[in-house]
Amino acid sequence: MAAAAPPPPPTAAAVPNMDLPINHPLFTRIRLATKPDVPVIHKMIYQMAAFERLADQCSATEPSLSATLFSKDNPFESFTVFLIEVSTTPLPSSSIAHHPKFTPIHKTLNLDYPISDPEIELFKSSTMEAEVVVAGFVLFFPNYSTFLAKPGFYIEDLFVRESYRRKGLGKMMLSAVAGQAVVMGYGRVEWVVLDWNTNAIKFYEEMGADVMKEWRVCRLTGDALQAYATTSGTKDLDLI
Amino acid sequence: MAAAAPPPPPTAAAVPNMDLPINHPLFTRIRLATKPDVPVIHKMIYQMAAFERLADQCSATEPSLSATLFSKDNPFESFTVFLIEVSTTPLPSSSIAHHPKFTPIHKTLNLDYPISDPEIELFKSSTMEAEVVVAGFVLFFPNYSTFLAKPGFYIEDLFVRESYRRKGLGKMMLSAVAGQAVVMGYGRVEWVVLDWNTNAIKFYEEMGADVMKEWRVCRLTGDALQAYATTSGTKDLDLI
Repeated sequence: MAAAAPPPPPTAAAVPNMDLPINHPLFTRIRLATKPDVPVIHKMIYQMAAFERLADQCSATEPSLSATLFSKDNPFESFTVFLIEVSTTPLPSSSIAHHPKFTPIHKTLNLDYPISDPEIELFKSSTMEAEVVVAGFVLFFPNYSTFLAKPGFYIEDLFVRESYRRKGLGKMMLSAVAGQAVVMGYGRVEWVVLDWNTNAIKFYEEMGADVMKEWRVCRLTGDALQAYATTSGTKDLDLI
Repeated sequence: MAAAAPPPPPTAAAVPNMDLPINHPLFTRIRLATKPDVPVIHKMIYQMAAFERLADQCSATEPSLSATLFSKDNPFESFTVFLIEVSTTPLPSSSIAHHPKFTPIHKTLNLDYPISDPEIELFKSSTMEAEVVVAGFVLFFPNYSTFLAKPGFYIEDLFVRESYRRKGLGKMMLSAVAGQAVVMGYGRVEWVVLDWNTNAIKFYEEMGADVMKEWRVCRLTGDALQAYATTSGTKDLDLI
């Protein structure tokens, strides 16, 4: 074997990109995520954490996500992820395995803004279809209302990658979760929003949601939670 | 058959009561609820709704609760209820069926206030043990943190019947949920509180919880949710 030549210098052409002008159709599909999608979900969680300036609080790894998501293949009964994927060419319905609980949702958008996505190699779909890129995700799971005596869905995360924002993809994913809740006869869909995020609040109210101003979220975590690690689970009760 | 005599007038003695003076021991037990406990859970949900002045929003019935709770016997993986039961006589550990996922928590309290419970007939334990009365419940289920890549628990309701308040029973139930979260390696326990309920906020902070002032709960329910009942789940997207 000959001595290794130095690698060629990177060129702009060597970085695959997605560039779409105005009025080019963008083909979209919402489907259930499965374990092979963990690497792209992991990357999006870190992009979301950076966007929220909370990256220091993020300790998720691909193995820890793999260990806790999708192991039972029971979507809608436990932690569930929808991915929204996009392509510049039509996405055939038959290209991914059928799931008995959810039929993928296809929609074709005509762009009102051009798109440029320099990260298509990082976010290739696990379906191995050519030129299909993951653009966002929503993670949700069942909750329960005792007043309604019905389950509902709680949305933990809704994220659209930067290149695809302001095109309705977030609304499509939120609508897909709400539509699934109706299909299942569920009573509510809930999530939280930061009180200073007035754009998001306006968007959610336009979607029909009530923003409940009086409720505050309480969280027990870290060392404060570990303090309850006793055999009885009843630490320091201070009872007379 | 003789003509019916009018029923005797009710007397105080005809109403079974639980009356305990100061320093009398009160024996308590936290156990997993099962389907036979639905009638007492139903009554407590209505007492809780009345306490919160939200009874008009409560539509739970015994059949609707039975249809949605405990059908799979998978506590901690889905909707889970702990009951706290009390008795004036010791509660033997062997008196209820063993569950592989949870060992009941026993604790004996010495009362700093007398107790009078006029509703013991309504809240008899489904275990059929003599003089064992249900005093409260906590309903919780798994949630998920993408930042931690770990499940947690979300507490939907924590309720103690009026006769048994201010004796530490709420703290015991919250501690039991937190202890179970630690046993399972979970990352968080979360719930919500009304912002004007300063006593509750102080209590939760003393338990080690952070009250997260910036987050607001969004809820999509009723007709606004039903509006998403389309075949695609993507209603009225208004996309160009």
